Amino acid sequence: MANTPYKIYLTEDEMPKNWYNLKAVMKELPTPFINPATLKPCTAEELDQVFCNDLVEQELNTTDKYIKIPEEIRAFYKMYRPSPLVRAYCLEKQLDTPAEIYYKFEGSNTSGSHKLNSAAAQVYYAKKQGLTSLTTETGAGQWGTALAMACAYYNINLSVYMVKVSAEQKPYRKAVIETYGGKVIPSPSNTTEVGRKILAENPGTGGSLGCAISEAMEVAMKTDNCRYVLGSVLDHVLLHQSIIGEETRIACEKYDIKPDIIIGCAGGGSNFGGLIAPFMGDKIHGQNNIQFIAVEPVSCPSLTRGKYAFDFGDTGQTTPLMKMYTLGAGFMPSPNHAGGLRYHGMSPIVSKLYDDGYLEACSVEQLKVFEAATMFARCEGTLPAPESAHALKTAIDEALKCKETGEKKTIVFGLTGTGYFDLTAYMSYNDATMTDYIPTNEDLEKGFATLPNIKL
Amino acid sequence: MANTPYKIYLTEDEMPKNWYNLKAVMKELPTPFINPATLKPCTAEELDQVFCNDLVEQELNTTDKYIKIPEEIRAFYKMYRPSPLVRAYCLEKQLDTPAEIYYKFEGSNTSGSHKLNSAAAQVYYAKKQGLTSLTTETGAGQWGTALAMACAYYNINLSVYMVKVSAEQKPYRKAVIETYGGKVIPSPSNTTEVGRKILAENPGTGGSLGCAISEAMEVAMKTDNCRYVLGSVLDHVLLHQSIIGEETRIACEKYDIKPDIIIGCAGGGSNFGGLIAPFMGDKIHGQNNIQFIAVEPVSCPSLTRGKYAFDFGDTGQTTPLMKMYTLGAGFMPSPNHAGGLRYHGMSPIVSKLYDDGYLEACSVEQLKVFEAATMFARCEGTLPAPESAHALKTAIDEALKCKETGEKKTIVFGLTGTGYFDLTAYMSYNDATMTDYIPTNEDLEKGFATLPNIKL
Repeated sequence: MANTPYKIYLTEDEMPKNWYNLKAVMKELPTPFINPATLKPCTAEELDQVFCNDLVEQELNTTDKYIKIPEEIRAFYKMYRPSPLVRAYCLEKQLDTPAEIYYKFEGSNTSGSHKLNSAAAQVYYAKKQGLTSLTTETGAGQWGTALAMACAYYNINLSVYMVKVSAEQKPYRKAVIETYGGKVIPSPSNTTEVGRKILAENPGTGGSLGCAISEAMEVAMKTDNCRYVLGSVLDHVLLHQSIIGEETRIACEKYDIKPDIIIGCAGGGSNFGGLIAPFMGDKIHGQNNIQFIAVEPVSCPSLTRGKYAFDFGDTGQTTPLMKMYTLGAGFMPSPNHAGGLRYHGMSPIVSKLYDDGYLEACSVEQLKVFEAATMFARCEGTLPAPESAHALKTAIDEALKCKETGEKKTIVFGLTGTGYFDLTAYMSYNDATMTDYIPTNEDLEKGFATLPNIKL
Repeated sequence: MANTPYKIYLTEDEMPKNWYNLKAVMKELPTPFINPATLKPCTAEELDQVFCNDLVEQELNTTDKYIKIPEEIRAFYKMYRPSPLVRAYCLEKQLDTPAEIYYKFEGSNTSGSHKLNSAAAQVYYAKKQGLTSLTTETGAGQWGTALAMACAYYNINLSVYMVKVSAEQKPYRKAVIETYGGKVIPSPSNTTEVGRKILAENPGTGGSLGCAISEAMEVAMKTDNCRYVLGSVLDHVLLHQSIIGEETRIACEKYDIKPDIIIGCAGGGSNFGGLIAPFMGDKIHGQNNIQFIAVEPVSCPSLTRGKYAFDFGDTGQTTPLMKMYTLGAGFMPSPNHAGGLRYHGMSPIVSKLYDDGYLEACSVEQLKVFEAATMFARCEGTLPAPESAHALKTAIDEALKCKETGEKKTIVFGLTGTGYFDLTAYMSYNDATMTDYIPTNEDLEKGFATLPNIKL
């Protein structure tokens, strides 16, 4: 391994030409979406009413390991990709660890995160289908920004339902989405039936991704030539995010880097699923023994404290049912600053792999996350997004274990984005007003009580 | 030229090992600094009291065309460099121009701009000299952030005098500087004699770089083991920023790109001077005929409406005298959003080259700058800093001229940074409350009246 460069950039020729479809290599597939009305698997026709046709086709594809990235999307990717695989030399030195630490940095585009990888694809397919407008939700604001960027590029109208607490914590997120021409509505709002219902039941709520999804879906269903797009959780989003894993794999092969541990933060699971995809495919077939760790906040612990059950994707209980690790669609996460990780459920693919023992999960506390983030910023330069800093925190923990044992492990983690729009969070850490939120068992039981009572 | 990649990244081996010292190749040198007390050129000993010794040596070096970048600074550079030279394919398409447009993008680090190039160097030399603290000024906040990052890396205390209007427009800038451990004081402040004097005379002033410099210098002079560092204007800052030009030159040679026009925004002149350095050196010696354009805001037009005269670098009239294009140290620029361009003077090197006819200058209006910035963001993805968008606006104008004439010129401009901390400005553009500020001749006369009455 020796002296890898500080930053590995693939050339355009080396950039992946395909997405990696994990479902085509899994030994057992995740349970398909269930239509809550019929309790049968959703058909493509049913899904086409909510999502773009090409995305539904990708969502249901369980056979093609590689799915070709259309030339137009590759052109968009070239505008802001490849993202660098960075050797964290300064962090290694700071920790005095024998471990080698690498991070795949997705924050170098204006959306500030990996979310643009799927936005670029989804809006392309929407345009191809002749749609004129899209709706979506956003938590931290990264997905909303990414989608606004893609919609500006393809000239499509966009309405973004933004989790209210995030909209308040991040006023400039709204401004940047609007600069790209997107319309921002804090959620829950009174612009939808489901929003009015949620507001009536919880007048003071700061909202959640689950609520925002319900609102955005309602509007998409009621508007001509409009569809809903989602930034995480779904299989086609993980598929698009596999560009992260594919680039990482190619960079690792180029410099003979052999990861022992791959770590990602996990909210809906798209970044984590995308980062690990090709490595996990190899592991499933016995070609490596990499340890995969999904990191979530203690405040929203779907993998580590949730149930593997059928649940709705949204608080309004309007989506198809998905079998996933979940805290219940009615779980209201506390206003932790990692807005992108405040989702009650987890990608069905990641959930299945976790249940089958292919990956591990852990949860970390907000204050320790910001301590790690600040340390990283000061020694490596880059200010991480709170979400990304969850993976960072766990990478540091693993590197410190290596220091104790003397093991020279190779650790790769996903640094999914930058914290430039999260300064309110950093301010509350700096002035010591930040606290931790750990749900009690009673809090969790309230969420579980909202799980649908379904026998299949 | 044909099909250059979207983004050109140099490999570590290709990265410059030297800075390019323009003064060593200029046919006539800029007039040296003058001590206002003796009216004789400043000696190294005099300058050493304010600046680090090594920086003074670089400031006065007129003989070495290449100055070696110390290994430690090269290691720092590798953390966030090389910066990409980007082919603006989407902008070309949007403008329907035969011109080829490239931009050197310096915004991929957390400081959000090129400023880190000199911060990394200056703090290294301060550490080497055994200093324990530094003071500086910041306008847009980019220099302050860059310096805070470098000070965190080298473990040196930092006080940042931030132009008050910028501090108010950009609350999160303060937060990010503090996250890196820097102390922020809005200027003018009552922490210094000069600050109290300025406040007494102009109680409502939003401040200026000139004021902030005076305050930071006063503190540095009065504090043990402390020096003042400056983010622009001075020759050694241009020297450090020549890393931009050197990388651009190497990337152009690698892909046989032959610029016809090179454009940069110019506040103090460091980015512009650094970008053009090696190309200008060749032009001076007849090896190319590139058109160089420095772009400034109409609200602070030092090159286009200023005088070439001896002036102080700061409002408090405490610096050595520099011969430069200036609006007078007492000129109070209107609160235009491009904080980094609100300086009364211009780098003595850039001023001399301009006076000798080697480069052109133009000024652009704020509203047109934001129109260009928004268009660029929507088609190229990246949200530019208001400062950088001045160069962008002029690049677009030149590309549109090519469209009229059918000329296939190669245009390179410096995109010095991102606008992530300038969303207040974008908000005022979006909601149409932004206005233009064009100083009247009377405004200018007031500034000129503060020029020192010195005969040499």
